[in-house]
Amino acid sequence: MSYVNPGSEYRRDQRYLTTRITRDGRDGWPVESGRYRLVVSRACPWAHRAVIVRRLLGLEDALSMGICGPVHDERSWTFDLDPDGRDPVLGIERLQQAYLARDPDYPLGITVPAVVDVPTGQVVTNDFAQITVDLSLEWVRFHRPGAPELYPEHLREQIDEVNTDVFRDVNNGVYRAGFAGTQEAYERAYTRLFTRLDALSERLSRQRYLVGDTLTEADVRLFTTLARFDAVYHGHFKCNRSKLSELPVLFAYFRDLFQTPGFGDTVDLVHVKEHYYRVHRDINPTGVVPLGPDTSTWWAPHHREELGGRPFGEGTPPGPLPATEVVPEDHRP
Amino acid sequence: MSYVNPGSEYRRDQRYLTTRITRDGRDGWPVESGRYRLVVSRACPWAHRAVIVRRLLGLEDALSMGICGPVHDERSWTFDLDPDGRDPVLGIERLQQAYLARDPDYPLGITVPAVVDVPTGQVVTNDFAQITVDLSLEWVRFHRPGAPELYPEHLREQIDEVNTDVFRDVNNGVYRAGFAGTQEAYERAYTRLFTRLDALSERLSRQRYLVGDTLTEADVRLFTTLARFDAVYHGHFKCNRSKLSELPVLFAYFRDLFQTPGFGDTVDLVHVKEHYYRVHRDINPTGVVPLGPDTSTWWAPHHREELGGRPFGEGTPPGPLPATEVVPEDHRP
Repeated sequence: MSYVNPGSEYRRDQRYLTTRITRDGRDGWPVESGRYRLVVSRACPWAHRAVIVRRLLGLEDALSMGICGPVHDERSWTFDLDPDGRDPVLGIERLQQAYLARDPDYPLGITVPAVVDVPTGQVVTNDFAQITVDLSLEWVRFHRPGAPELYPEHLREQIDEVNTDVFRDVNNGVYRAGFAGTQEAYERAYTRLFTRLDALSERLSRQRYLVGDTLTEADVRLFTTLARFDAVYHGHFKCNRSKLSELPVLFAYFRDLFQTPGFGDTVDLVHVKEHYYRVHRDINPTGVVPLGPDTSTWWAPHHREELGGRPFGEGTPPGPLPATEVVPEDHRP
Repeated sequence: MSYVNPGSEYRRDQRYLTTRITRDGRDGWPVESGRYRLVVSRACPWAHRAVIVRRLLGLEDALSMGICGPVHDERSWTFDLDPDGRDPVLGIERLQQAYLARDPDYPLGITVPAVVDVPTGQVVTNDFAQITVDLSLEWVRFHRPGAPELYPEHLREQIDEVNTDVFRDVNNGVYRAGFAGTQEAYERAYTRLFTRLDALSERLSRQRYLVGDTLTEADVRLFTTLARFDAVYHGHFKCNRSKLSELPVLFAYFRDLFQTPGFGDTVDLVHVKEHYYRVHRDINPTGVVPLGPDTSTWWAPHHREELGGRPFGEGTPPGPLPATEVVPEDHRP
């Protein structure tokens, strides 16, 4: 499978299944408890957003979760972590089957996160940017008591603005650096990335969270890239001006989130490293997976409380993870 | 050109031309001013040793230096930096020609450093570990006034002992990590490397230099690997438990050397990066060269003077570099 297009910049295929699960069911899929399954890989930063938001909102009972293994083949993510290699709820071995159930000629990428309608086995949506917003706004009825408002109306414009910059320069920027097919495309992506990280550091030196004084969707989106930065993007994607651990403000911000229930407890760094280093053979032909980095400092005090802020606003932190969703001890940073 | 042997560990071919240039000329090549040319690449850590030692000892006038470009082809380092692509003294375009002048069937690697006998155009030796020792012990007559003793008799045993460990686990250890053909071989090399770096940190927390209280051959040998660590070995070779810049004692030791005339002023980080990232296509197929790391902290105060020590012993630092040997401003860290 090739990720780099020699001579060209990297362009992410941004076409997705955009049908939505909504309160009014206008696309044919109404919000309903127990009907859908969120399929993720813990390796994938786009899926990781949904894992975090689902947990922060306490949607575990309403929306079950299937977890693919970190190393997919050319055609599909697979359920190779499940005892018989088959998702226990969907009964399929390959996520591709759920895409083909939706459209036998499905022409696009088999991506996670994907929300699957269990009765029909069809993928409803893999539009990752919309999925988390809909978990916040459409699934309200099933939120736990004390769930935070991650996408509150009065901050929406600011959140969207931050998200646009963070997506272009950071979330997707690291891929544009790593999969650049020319030196120039790489350098452009690298420069935009670190310019943006510096601007974010500046912003976060004055406020605890990206928007307002509570955790929002914007923090979730930045977190999933930062959590992979030193382990993958720094070396594998050549985003190496500095490690996250060398950027004091951003690293303290990261540690603050990491140490918040719902963030750090969903990080599986073994899956993350396995995925990037074993799947992208065109930039890592040996498939050797690095042993580093040392992540012991991720638990160091961050002192971000001094900036004020209320992580969950009027709400409360989520409780412990369901036993079936706990990241294995030796996979945690 | 392939560096990784899939399924195997990396093994350096350690066979060299071991004839020596000596005071008594017993191998047919007596020490003589103006007769030999040291051929190097600024990219290569093994050649870098000779560049530093020659400068510390003030041998510039007695032993001239030719500099190959950073990116060699499958068969040879080349003089592509010289105006007409030809070494002005040897009159050759490819270092291979000097090896073939020595032996038309020369079967081994075309490596730098190589010392070439100018009248015959033949490589005398490319035995890098012996070359620097001989510059110290055999070329004494041409040392500058105030040249340091880099391999003093009373410390030789200790220096050799440190060098053996540093070669196996660090100098060559990074290559064993980077060119490992199996996950196990990589992990073994990584573990030995960082175990050794930790032991060196411990040793250097109590003394300014590796052996005795002055600069020796041992410091030169460790320095050339440390100078490439964050720019190349950390990412490209997956030696990523931590950057050198994250190891406080070793990084201060490195800065101390880097800021000493003869060390930092011989570092060409552009050549270093171009070499590793463009030549080793089997571990970096795109040939994209990273823009990082930020090296501005290499100039930060190191406070190592507090440990005492006299860098040049009874001697003095070398004077300014000859104009023809100055590393271009924009290639310096």
